[in-house]
Amino acid sequence: MIIALDAMGCDNGVAAVVQGAADAKKMFPFFEPVFFGHEDELKPELEKHGFNRFVHAATVITPDEPPTLAFRRKKDSSIVMGLKYVKEGNASAFVSAGSTGALLTGATVIIGRKPGIERPALGTVLPTRTGGFVLLMDCGANMDCKPSYLAQFAELGAEYMQKCMKLDRPRIGLINVGTEEEKGNAVAKEAHALLKESGLNFAGNIEGREILSGEVDVAVCDGFTGNILLKHTEGFAKIMLGIIKEQLLSSTISKIGALLAKGAFGKLKKRFDYREVGGAPFLGLNQIVIKAHGSSDALAIKNAIRQCIEYTQSTGTK
Amino acid sequence: MIIALDAMGCDNGVAAVVQGAADAKKMFPFFEPVFFGHEDELKPELEKHGFNRFVHAATVITPDEPPTLAFRRKKDSSIVMGLKYVKEGNASAFVSAGSTGALLTGATVIIGRKPGIERPALGTVLPTRTGGFVLLMDCGANMDCKPSYLAQFAELGAEYMQKCMKLDRPRIGLINVGTEEEKGNAVAKEAHALLKESGLNFAGNIEGREILSGEVDVAVCDGFTGNILLKHTEGFAKIMLGIIKEQLLSSTISKIGALLAKGAFGKLKKRFDYREVGGAPFLGLNQIVIKAHGSSDALAIKNAIRQCIEYTQSTGTK
Repeated sequence: MIIALDAMGCDNGVAAVVQGAADAKKMFPFFEPVFFGHEDELKPELEKHGFNRFVHAATVITPDEPPTLAFRRKKDSSIVMGLKYVKEGNASAFVSAGSTGALLTGATVIIGRKPGIERPALGTVLPTRTGGFVLLMDCGANMDCKPSYLAQFAELGAEYMQKCMKLDRPRIGLINVGTEEEKGNAVAKEAHALLKESGLNFAGNIEGREILSGEVDVAVCDGFTGNILLKHTEGFAKIMLGIIKEQLLSSTISKIGALLAKGAFGKLKKRFDYREVGGAPFLGLNQIVIKAHGSSDALAIKNAIRQCIEYTQSTGTK
Repeated sequence: MIIALDAMGCDNGVAAVVQGAADAKKMFPFFEPVFFGHEDELKPELEKHGFNRFVHAATVITPDEPPTLAFRRKKDSSIVMGLKYVKEGNASAFVSAGSTGALLTGATVIIGRKPGIERPALGTVLPTRTGGFVLLMDCGANMDCKPSYLAQFAELGAEYMQKCMKLDRPRIGLINVGTEEEKGNAVAKEAHALLKESGLNFAGNIEGREILSGEVDVAVCDGFTGNILLKHTEGFAKIMLGIIKEQLLSSTISKIGALLAKGAFGKLKKRFDYREVGGAPFLGLNQIVIKAHGSSDALAIKNAIRQCIEYTQSTGTK
């Protein structure tokens, strides 16, 4: 299985991407990476791991460039060239840790939307209280959403969780301010009505406190709310762990306690480690595109590749 | 200082409200509570603490009633009667743990908006990473917001934090998906432009991960986003503490560790305990209205009263 990898745009450099691919190759010997990036940076890294397939991309789109403009101007960037390679049927999927905006714009234009889907959306898999996972989407691809977009996000999310997590009829929750169907802003109210009629396994509105409670498998909202929620979750987890650490180190007795309880904290950290989950799937396209975290290391890249492979296998795409 | 207290609608019953008032009275001997509720329930509790001022309210608006309808029909409810009492100048403020919707509707209609304020909003004070506090608003009073509402929330929030927390020129952040001013949904983009021109100490857009980082004193968003964020924060804190507990109890060694580190966890719990902060101020009205948490106990009620007293003192209102 051939997967196209953007070797640029990862905060940890080309080495992290190539190392991640090498680690994935050990798990899935049938996996063949094709790297997109500058050959001067790529070649020495590829040689270390015995890889040889790459496509030279002279430029990189950086996260601070306006995505639409950058995408139009930088035809020789790793993102644009990688997406074209996938579109032409040379690879099953594309993984990039580069500019989210450019990847979303590029993927929509180059790879194209699935029939019936107005707007592709970015999903993120988060751990739940009950030990499972929930797909939060949209996480930032669409700022102002029509109710029909939200209904389509639900449909795409359900398909993803069914295939990736082997769930039978994933439970859909609409993120809202109350469980009653008349609650919410104008878009949420109309989306509720659409979801009720959708034939999906719609569990109704969920409030903020139920997003990670394990009650639903897909939590749907517009990309503005989803992006803020996702980043807040990341930030809050760090803040809480930081305060715990601070408190634990504040006295000798609690320091000893912390040392004894180290294993427990390690497990907690692993549970909330985005690197374990893989990347964020960009759903609603004709092919698979995964956005890996900008600060991905080899472990995160490996898991994003694993995610592509598992999804591709489940859909029967090549 | 006279403060009107809704004795009904608190999950912990009349006793919690009366006990909270008694505890506040010990801190502030000049404080005089007037209770609103059913006399049969009130009288025995008031006698225990030597209180005697109350107004009999025959009905209660429950959280599951449609707020506008309930407010119109139940003229003899504790919320409606208490708000009228404040409006008529008999008390400085009103505190209620009852139906949020009925309180917001009632307060807007009975007490009325400040000049220049289109929509009053609900603020919530949250602890930050750096040991301070941030006012998140709107937390659920206004679902679909115009950009001008958001600019007014910022103004109201700044005034509140200046007076209550004695901050000089509170820093305002607009909750958004990126720090660049062109980011966000249509409302956020326009609100950004208004805030830039507002003369407030506007720190620009903040992303989800910066809400609790201590970088701003007021974090502004529409009531849909704010309500979801607030409830998610509550839910996520519980989930993390639950997982930590589970992990700590999973082995004998970590159990001993947890026992030694107990003090540290106690401090963490206290830091994230909503009861310590008081209630949610409903800002933009001509008088002070505080929404206490539905599950308030005496401690939470006491702190909501303290909040009213401190705010009243800072504004010079009687």
